[in-house]
Amino acid sequence: MNNFVFKNSTKLIFGKGTISSLAAEIPAGRRIMMTYGGGSIKKNGVYDQVKAALSQFSVIEFGGIEPNPTYETLMQAVALAKEHHIDFFLAVGGGSVIDGTKFIVTAMLYNGDPWEFMLNPSKAQHAMPFASVLTLPATGSEMNNGSVISKKATQEKLAFAIAETYPQFSILDPEVTFSLPKRQLANGVVDAYVHVMEQYLTYPSESMIQDRFAEGILSTLIEIGEKVVNDEPDYDLRANFMLSATMALNGFISMGVPQDWATHMIGHELTALFGLDHGVTLAIIEPSLLRATKEYKKTKLLQYADRVWSIKHGTEEERIEAAIDKTEAFYRNLGIKTKLHEYNIDNKSFDTIVDRFAKRGWKLGEKQLITPDVIREILNGCL
Amino acid sequence: MNNFVFKNSTKLIFGKGTISSLAAEIPAGRRIMMTYGGGSIKKNGVYDQVKAALSQFSVIEFGGIEPNPTYETLMQAVALAKEHHIDFFLAVGGGSVIDGTKFIVTAMLYNGDPWEFMLNPSKAQHAMPFASVLTLPATGSEMNNGSVISKKATQEKLAFAIAETYPQFSILDPEVTFSLPKRQLANGVVDAYVHVMEQYLTYPSESMIQDRFAEGILSTLIEIGEKVVNDEPDYDLRANFMLSATMALNGFISMGVPQDWATHMIGHELTALFGLDHGVTLAIIEPSLLRATKEYKKTKLLQYADRVWSIKHGTEEERIEAAIDKTEAFYRNLGIKTKLHEYNIDNKSFDTIVDRFAKRGWKLGEKQLITPDVIREILNGCL
Repeated sequence: MNNFVFKNSTKLIFGKGTISSLAAEIPAGRRIMMTYGGGSIKKNGVYDQVKAALSQFSVIEFGGIEPNPTYETLMQAVALAKEHHIDFFLAVGGGSVIDGTKFIVTAMLYNGDPWEFMLNPSKAQHAMPFASVLTLPATGSEMNNGSVISKKATQEKLAFAIAETYPQFSILDPEVTFSLPKRQLANGVVDAYVHVMEQYLTYPSESMIQDRFAEGILSTLIEIGEKVVNDEPDYDLRANFMLSATMALNGFISMGVPQDWATHMIGHELTALFGLDHGVTLAIIEPSLLRATKEYKKTKLLQYADRVWSIKHGTEEERIEAAIDKTEAFYRNLGIKTKLHEYNIDNKSFDTIVDRFAKRGWKLGEKQLITPDVIREILNGCL
Repeated sequence: MNNFVFKNSTKLIFGKGTISSLAAEIPAGRRIMMTYGGGSIKKNGVYDQVKAALSQFSVIEFGGIEPNPTYETLMQAVALAKEHHIDFFLAVGGGSVIDGTKFIVTAMLYNGDPWEFMLNPSKAQHAMPFASVLTLPATGSEMNNGSVISKKATQEKLAFAIAETYPQFSILDPEVTFSLPKRQLANGVVDAYVHVMEQYLTYPSESMIQDRFAEGILSTLIEIGEKVVNDEPDYDLRANFMLSATMALNGFISMGVPQDWATHMIGHELTALFGLDHGVTLAIIEPSLLRATKEYKKTKLLQYADRVWSIKHGTEEERIEAAIDKTEAFYRNLGIKTKLHEYNIDNKSFDTIVDRFAKRGWKLGEKQLITPDVIREILNGCL
C-alpha cells in the first residue's frame, strides 16, 4: 500500500427535512451570500426552504452560476460580496454552484487577479468559510475541496483545491432530488460510477479496504441505478444514490491507491467541442478506454468482473470483455447512448483532440501509457 | 435510511516512515506532553523515533498509562501538564493511551472535578489540542472522539466523547506493529471485526453503502487475519490490518445505521470479573449472542452469510448456523479460545452479571430486546 494523508473536514448533514437545520450551523450575525445557478431551486421549493431557514440572517443572493462556472461570472460575485462585506457563503445547487463558490471564497482573500491561482494553485492559501445545500447528486463537490473553473476569454478550464476549500458543512436532503429530470439523474449515476472507476480500475496496489469500498459503491449504483432513473421517486433509493455520489469522491476510496482519470480528461474535450453532457462523455469514453488498456489493467479488470459483476466463468479474455460489455449495457439501460454516431459525431474531430493532448505533452492514465496514439484508438472505439 | 450527521476532523497520516513527519504537524513553539503506557515503545524503537522527530520542541513525558486507563493516574498527568504549561499533547501508544489522553486534554480545560464530565458528558465542552502515534491497531481511538476511563476508587468504567476529542492528526506506520506479540495482534483483529459487527449485524435499514463498506472490512479481516497473526510480518498485510481497525470505528460505516453493542457491554463484565482481554471477551460472547438473537437478526444474518462467507446453499436456518460457526472458527484460528470453560470459568458468576444489568435497568441491543434473561441465555451459550 502506498503512503497517504487523508483529511476531510466537511460536516455531512444527511436526511429528510435537514435544510431547516441550516441556521444552527452558521454563527449568528454572519452576512451571508447565497449562490445558486439557473433558478431550478425556485421551482423545486429548495429556495424557499433555504430562505426560511436563514430568516434571521442578512442574505445577499447571487444567482446565474453556469453549468461550467466561469471566472467572468464568479468575479461579479466576488465584487458584490466585497461591496456587502459578506463573511459566509452558502452554495445552493449542484457541483457547478459549489465549485464556483469554492473559487469565490478563495478569490475573496487573494491579493491580485484570482486567475493567477487557477494557473498556479500553490499561490492560493486561504478561503472564507462556506457551506452547501446539495440539489444534484453527481460530482461529490459537496464533500471535497476540488473546483473546476472555466475562463471564457481564453477558453481555459482549470482545477484547483486547497485545504480551506472543503465546505464547512453540506446538507443533503434526498427529497430535493425528487424533481430532477431523468437526464440529470442518469448523468449523476454515471458520474458517480466513473469517479469510482477512475480510482479503482487501475492496477493492484494492496489497498484491500479501498478496493472493497469502491466495489461496494459500484455494486450499489448497479443495484439502484435503473430504478433511480426510471421509477417514481423512492426515498431510500434516492438516499443511497445521493450518498453513493458523495462517497465516490470524498477521499474514502482513494487512500493510497493509484488513479487513472483519463476518461475524464478525454471526455472534457468532447464537452468542449460538442457540448455533450459530462456524464454522457464518460459513458462514451470509458468502455472504449477499458478495451484499449485491458492489457495493463488486466488484473483489476478480472477482479472487477468477479466481484462487481459476478462473472465467474470463461477465459480471462472472455471475462474481461463480459465485464466491459455489462458496464456499457448498464449505462445504456440508464438511457444514455454510448456511441458517438448516436450523437451524429464522426471521426473528423479526432485530429483536433489528439493534437491538443500531443501539444500539452500529456500522457494520461495511472501508468502514463495513454499517449496521443492510444487516445486516437480510444476515440475510434467510441464511433 | 435514517437521518445522520457525520464529521471526522482527524488527519490520517499513514505509511512507512511517517513518524518523522511529526514535527511538521505541530505548530512551532508548542510545549508538548508526550503520553505513553508501560514502556513497550522504548523497546520497539517508537520512543526514539518520536523523540528524534520532536527534537526542536520542549517535551515533558508522562508514561505509565494503564491498559484500562484510570482517572487516578490521568489526574497526575493533568497536574504535571498544568505545572509545565503544556499546550499540546501527543499520545504514543494504543487505544488506552489515546483514550487516556482524550480525558487529560478535556480535564485541562474543565473547571471542577473532571470526573463530573464522565458522569455527565454534556458538562464537557472543550479540549486542548492533541494528536497520536498509534502503536497497536485495535480500538479505532486514533480516528474517533470516544474515550473509556475507569475510576479505581469507585470501580466505575465510563465513556465520553465531545467534538474536540478527535485527534488533530494520527500517525499510523504499519512497521511499528512488527514487534507486537501474537496475542495482541489476534485481539486487535477480533476487536476490529466485532466493532464492524456491532454496527452491521442488526436489521436492514436501507443503508446500502454502509452495509457494503462493513462487509468490505469484514472480508478483508477474514482474508488477512490468520496471516497477520501467524506469519512473519508482511508490510502490506499489516497496513491493511491497521487501516481496517481504523475504518471499523471512525464513523464511515455507522452513517444512518442502527447499532447493537451488546457484545461489548456483556464482554466488559467478563473483563471486570475475570480480567479477560477485551478481544477475548468479544470472541466468547458474540457467537452466542448471534445464536440467541437470530430470530430478529435473521435478515442481516442471511445477508452476512451470503456476502461475507459466500454461503449460498441450505435452509435459512442452516445458512445462519453456518455463518455463526464460521465466525467462531475464524476467532479460534487466530488462536483465541471462544468458550468460558477453556478459561476455567463456570456459571457461578452469571447471577452477578445478570443482576448488574437488571439493577441498571438496561435492555441491550439495537431493539432493546436483550433483557437480563437473554443475557443469561447468551452466557449459558458461552460455557
